[in-house]
Amino acid sequence: MNMDIKAYMQTVGQQARAASRLMAKADTNAKNKALTSMAAAIQRDAAKLIEANAKDLAEAREAGLEEALLDRLALTEKGVAGMAEGLLQIAALPDPVGEITGLNYRPSGIQVGKMRVPLGVIGIIYEARPNVTADAAGLCLKSGNAAILRGGSEAIHSNQAIAACVREGLAAAGLPPTAVQVIETTDRAAVGELITMKEFVDVIVPRGGKGLIERLIAEARIPVIKHLHGVCHVYIDDKADLDKAIRIADNAKTSRYGTCNTMETLLVAEGVAVTVLPPLCKIYLDKGVELRGCPASRAIIPQMKEATEEDWHTEYLAPILSVRVVKDIDEAIEHINTYSSQHTESIVTEDYSRARRFLREVDSSSVMVNASTRFADGFEYGLGAEIGISTDKIHARGPVGLEGLTSQKFIVLGDGHVRG
Amino acid sequence: MNMDIKAYMQTVGQQARAASRLMAKADTNAKNKALTSMAAAIQRDAAKLIEANAKDLAEAREAGLEEALLDRLALTEKGVAGMAEGLLQIAALPDPVGEITGLNYRPSGIQVGKMRVPLGVIGIIYEARPNVTADAAGLCLKSGNAAILRGGSEAIHSNQAIAACVREGLAAAGLPPTAVQVIETTDRAAVGELITMKEFVDVIVPRGGKGLIERLIAEARIPVIKHLHGVCHVYIDDKADLDKAIRIADNAKTSRYGTCNTMETLLVAEGVAVTVLPPLCKIYLDKGVELRGCPASRAIIPQMKEATEEDWHTEYLAPILSVRVVKDIDEAIEHINTYSSQHTESIVTEDYSRARRFLREVDSSSVMVNASTRFADGFEYGLGAEIGISTDKIHARGPVGLEGLTSQKFIVLGDGHVRG
Repeated sequence: MNMDIKAYMQTVGQQARAASRLMAKADTNAKNKALTSMAAAIQRDAAKLIEANAKDLAEAREAGLEEALLDRLALTEKGVAGMAEGLLQIAALPDPVGEITGLNYRPSGIQVGKMRVPLGVIGIIYEARPNVTADAAGLCLKSGNAAILRGGSEAIHSNQAIAACVREGLAAAGLPPTAVQVIETTDRAAVGELITMKEFVDVIVPRGGKGLIERLIAEARIPVIKHLHGVCHVYIDDKADLDKAIRIADNAKTSRYGTCNTMETLLVAEGVAVTVLPPLCKIYLDKGVELRGCPASRAIIPQMKEATEEDWHTEYLAPILSVRVVKDIDEAIEHINTYSSQHTESIVTEDYSRARRFLREVDSSSVMVNASTRFADGFEYGLGAEIGISTDKIHARGPVGLEGLTSQKFIVLGDGHVRG
Repeated sequence: MNMDIKAYMQTVGQQARAASRLMAKADTNAKNKALTSMAAAIQRDAAKLIEANAKDLAEAREAGLEEALLDRLALTEKGVAGMAEGLLQIAALPDPVGEITGLNYRPSGIQVGKMRVPLGVIGIIYEARPNVTADAAGLCLKSGNAAILRGGSEAIHSNQAIAACVREGLAAAGLPPTAVQVIETTDRAAVGELITMKEFVDVIVPRGGKGLIERLIAEARIPVIKHLHGVCHVYIDDKADLDKAIRIADNAKTSRYGTCNTMETLLVAEGVAVTVLPPLCKIYLDKGVELRGCPASRAIIPQMKEATEEDWHTEYLAPILSVRVVKDIDEAIEHINTYSSQHTESIVTEDYSRARRFLREVDSSSVMVNASTRFADGFEYGLGAEIGISTDKIHARGPVGLEGLTSQKFIVLGDGHVRG
């Protein structure tokens, strides 16, 4: 059986590599036509997609999958419309491929610049959500890449139905149907092949829980654009405008609990802790947020539980917040650079020099002044869409949009120039 | 013994990580002062460095190292002056760290942009040439990184002597001396530790032969900015200006035989093969270049040997050239995308549309029109200096200068903004 999987994945890889060459030179118009045709096919087949999804849901229920997973797996009419809308939005984005920047004359007489080019073949590995199939296909296509998609086994019928719409869109635009391949087997050995086929795959983008991503990092022999987790911080400085501080700290925690850009630890300068913590913690407690604090915080807010060392490392993804009183910005930066997952951190201050220092010295993929960490998002940043948020430093950092799925090559224009 | 190496490397790693935080916020002036102080120390200690190098050379000769390796190992007075000059050139380059680009207002009211930041800790692994110690230290320092350098064991005395000058420069500028650490043991186990210490090292840059790099790629658990080899092509189109074609093809092959940007395969359109090959091959043969051709080339130039399939894959690094007559630009691009190492390729043509197609469709780190492949170089491109040439697509492609040793984080400026 494993030999069959290996042979199957090799074929998928070869086809993707061949398709990637055609995609790299596909013109903007063809790519946009493919995207709008996919969107139209998805809208037209809405009933069919929901039917395929119902099959997945029934099997998942039978297998006893938990409610949260069933939720992510479910595809509603609104969900289908959202997928189609997402593809139309990607079609409307500027084409990143071929963009030439910094083309300048050199003393030798040659002109040197950079041209943006696709990465080649992108392997996407994701879990239950079937809408990722359409999103990822659209982003890879627009950025001139071929894609190999491996969704969760529980979504196999939904994903195959979406894949048919994707292929129809590619065909309508005269692009190779193998430019987006959705893996047809649920055998886990396929993932093992995908993340080690160096000759056919240029980068792996995992979308899923920490467990999935850690396993992929350990086993992949191909670069991974990864996002492990978000332990995000807000630091309320003693020069903060307290109204802004309360508004931001409230929004950063309570607007959504389960997202990676949600604040997990609040740091407060000791100079304003007694002023800001009581009204802010009242908001949290009224909304049912469990508070876990350092001794100084608990002296001000007795309802807080005691925070352990473990708490400072934890991404709760839940209505729980850890709170620590720090001496000043130095102690805040020290805490962040020790415990943060380098996702997103924000300072609230009216002090110019401290804002300037925080921006420079905090080593996270997004660093903010007087804004909620919840803004760390491809749409909010104007990238149009995101394939993930990278907490790495190599290649792409922060929300990864079309540009993160491309690279730049050097171009040189001469007129018979030779090197002396 | 291995446990000692592990403990030693862990200490080196911890010190580098701690130093990297200070280097990331070091101001431009301090970094430049360190560079100029290093240069002064190297100039002052020239005799000492050459003495240390003489010790290395004597041991290498005793160990029976081959002449080419001794050549690379040797440090002359001119070589020492070159190292110092290189550091002064790096001091004169603009500081890449902290550069803010694309800071724009979004509909939500926040401003979003990117800030250039150091990667953190860079591990450099290289072979005989001791001058790499100063070059690599300078580039890592200016880009705000900490560096761990592991040179060839045959250069250990030279490298330690250079390291003393580097530390003196750092101290003179008030920067941590552990910002550049040269590994003091020649035990190969140290390399194994360096390329797997994920928590302390952010990227590995190997400089050396294919053997070294392939071993590192196989074993590293940290991203590698790698340059495997250069199988570079020049394609002479049938719309080429033949004078330019001959000038470029001559320069690309014969100006230096041993560099990675030297042409290894010449492709000639069949329409001009009988015109261009005789005068061009006369130049090559007069210069002692061995020619290996396809049947069509050999029909025109009988002195050519027969090229085998192996030749199209080969980086000769020697006065040998493979020659193939192709039908047209399509066959040329097909050949390049099949056999090239994705380093550098050039088309010679006066045809606008073919030049435009070549630039877009050839998937190499440098793509040129009417220029010699020998221009593929950090200095020629205006990067100021290069730490290597990447034939990868992820992160950095082509000559890697200061910018390639940095990343970009997002910055967000608000005024109490929260997400709706």
